[in-house]
Amino acid sequence: MNYNHLLAKRTARIKASAIREILKVVSQPGMISLAGGLPAPASFPLEIIDELSSLVINKYGSKAFQYSATEGFPELRDALTILLAQKGIHVTADDVCITSGSQGLLDGVGKVLISPGDKVVVEAPTYLGALQAFNSYGPEYICVPTDDDGIIPEYLEEVLKTQKIKFIYLVPTFQNPTGRTLSLKRRQKVAELIQKYDALLLEDDPYSDLRFRGTALPSIKSMAPDNVIYAGTLSKILAPGFRTGFYIAPAEIRHWLLLAKQGVDLHTGTYAQAIAAEYITGGYLQKQICRIIDIYKPKQEAMLAAMDAHFPDTFKWSHPEGGMFIWVEGPQDFDAGTMYRKAVEKKVAYVPGKYFYAHDGDGLGTMRLNFTVTDPELIEKAIHTLSDVIKAG
Amino acid sequence: MNYNHLLAKRTARIKASAIREILKVVSQPGMISLAGGLPAPASFPLEIIDELSSLVINKYGSKAFQYSATEGFPELRDALTILLAQKGIHVTADDVCITSGSQGLLDGVGKVLISPGDKVVVEAPTYLGALQAFNSYGPEYICVPTDDDGIIPEYLEEVLKTQKIKFIYLVPTFQNPTGRTLSLKRRQKVAELIQKYDALLLEDDPYSDLRFRGTALPSIKSMAPDNVIYAGTLSKILAPGFRTGFYIAPAEIRHWLLLAKQGVDLHTGTYAQAIAAEYITGGYLQKQICRIIDIYKPKQEAMLAAMDAHFPDTFKWSHPEGGMFIWVEGPQDFDAGTMYRKAVEKKVAYVPGKYFYAHDGDGLGTMRLNFTVTDPELIEKAIHTLSDVIKAG
Repeated sequence: MNYNHLLAKRTARIKASAIREILKVVSQPGMISLAGGLPAPASFPLEIIDELSSLVINKYGSKAFQYSATEGFPELRDALTILLAQKGIHVTADDVCITSGSQGLLDGVGKVLISPGDKVVVEAPTYLGALQAFNSYGPEYICVPTDDDGIIPEYLEEVLKTQKIKFIYLVPTFQNPTGRTLSLKRRQKVAELIQKYDALLLEDDPYSDLRFRGTALPSIKSMAPDNVIYAGTLSKILAPGFRTGFYIAPAEIRHWLLLAKQGVDLHTGTYAQAIAAEYITGGYLQKQICRIIDIYKPKQEAMLAAMDAHFPDTFKWSHPEGGMFIWVEGPQDFDAGTMYRKAVEKKVAYVPGKYFYAHDGDGLGTMRLNFTVTDPELIEKAIHTLSDVIKAG
Repeated sequence: MNYNHLLAKRTARIKASAIREILKVVSQPGMISLAGGLPAPASFPLEIIDELSSLVINKYGSKAFQYSATEGFPELRDALTILLAQKGIHVTADDVCITSGSQGLLDGVGKVLISPGDKVVVEAPTYLGALQAFNSYGPEYICVPTDDDGIIPEYLEEVLKTQKIKFIYLVPTFQNPTGRTLSLKRRQKVAELIQKYDALLLEDDPYSDLRFRGTALPSIKSMAPDNVIYAGTLSKILAPGFRTGFYIAPAEIRHWLLLAKQGVDLHTGTYAQAIAAEYITGGYLQKQICRIIDIYKPKQEAMLAAMDAHFPDTFKWSHPEGGMFIWVEGPQDFDAGTMYRKAVEKKVAYVPGKYFYAHDGDGLGTMRLNFTVTDPELIEKAIHTLSDVIKAG
């Protein structure tokens, strides 16, 4: 039987993730991977999860395994208010909704807001998973340039002034792929702009707890609550396998997000949510964040030190105060895609930065380097190898 | 800020589940509920889950908590081949894909197959969650009549002969809401028809393991594999809170379903999948199914006996050999919606059957009764009360 004629029109817009092919290379023997975006396995609190798994069964019994509210497991919604208050987001448990990873929210926002042809503002470059979530709903992307301090407000204002847009998607802190953080001044400016132009912002914040240095910056949500959907996740501070994300949205948007989620997965896994609730209220999370930073910080330092020592002067790279990635920009004629093949021959993998741009042809001279899953010595070796490949031209 | 103008066109099609309001009534003190569709809390194998939670951490370590393949956790895909073989579906682990509940598959099928206005065939009545999943993608429903033996093939053939349809959605065994099972003869006929007319069938099979009496019937998938997407779930035989469903689809359809799922939730929860894998391979599932049947069978028998004893002769009802529901059809002038309010006053809740029809105005004289969460004595009492309400008119 032929199935082609059965596909929906939107299906042609659903594209395979190009970096999936790249990630397959990673499993080759001897390969040092700076390509992935995974948390370090050592960052998962296995013993705590083991303990809390039993505790949850004793404490909640069948409730932790039954169908549950689309909004989320009440105790987790409650626990997350503590976490959010630390970020200047003061809400009640009723305001917090749970999603199946923050990916679940990205899909939901795409579903309830994007009609084919609608304009969505994204950073250039931006998070690939967001593009994947939105693509099937057929948006047109308006890409706003970024620099070391994140998205450039002047360009954003020009867009808001002249075009009708559905929403703006930003990862303001330790962005994927660049690791960059939107400065305080720019956060204030973005908050001002979205209020001035009555625009909606989706503020995706998976990395802000992974801060190795410097001072935490307030969320844009805390500055312009009515204009922001704030999305968080436990994927980087508990474990991604729990598929537990959360969000705070204006009530009317939340109403539709919840109805959409009913059709998509009814609700997020109850057992995982109950364990996550105990992880937060039991005080484990805060201690674990310190442990995770202790794992990541030396890796990042090793990468930055090796880049300082070996990379040519013609290259620039980000110096994030946290997160999981470093972003490299080569000189004018540098092609990170061509170099990728040579690097893989030398057993080092990374992701050419072009894949993180919504428009083809952008970012050809850029690379995303991940430091979370590789040991410092291997990171040093990999950066040395990359430098040699660059220099060999 | 006003958000209305930001909503996508499709969002107007996403409707609140009408039965959510009804289910709120259930929590009133003293209410006997025949309204829900939940498995009995006593059917969850809490001790086994506790044991397997620890086992999974020891056996798989961080792998059970990391990002994982969109296709599913390999060990679960492998384990499910055993379960599927018992249903006459002989596949390899590569053929089995995991979804976030079977709801996740329903949404995926809607997403990759339905363009607005496309025709989808459903039973009248049909599973409400399927309508909710499909609605946002804008199908036109073609409703095919059913009787005690399930969907009536002559009507189905008439549709397939005269209309261009995207797919057929059926729950052939112990259907929700009717509890009815498509007879063997009709299964063969449906298999023949979909092959003759080159049609795609989505065979949703959440209940077939809950068989109290009689002989298991082969899946339609086993009769016409190229024309069927087969969907299963562990929600009724492990616990719904695990949000673990699975499906077997023709390779080309699977390709698109997987790409769509990447954008929706990346993958289904890993820990839950790992526990589910051990639950099946450790032999716990088969024993637990026997326990669940031991819980449900007497409840169903109590309901059927009470209906035989008390319900007026003018009423007909299904006599399912398993599942979770009994379907009641009143005489011509009976209005199950009006009676619902009177029944709730007498502290008995059920779901008027009209909510399970894709077209408004159908099924006004029908009711869905659930027997899984209520004790036999209370079921007896509730049926007695319903009979009194019916007789009082």
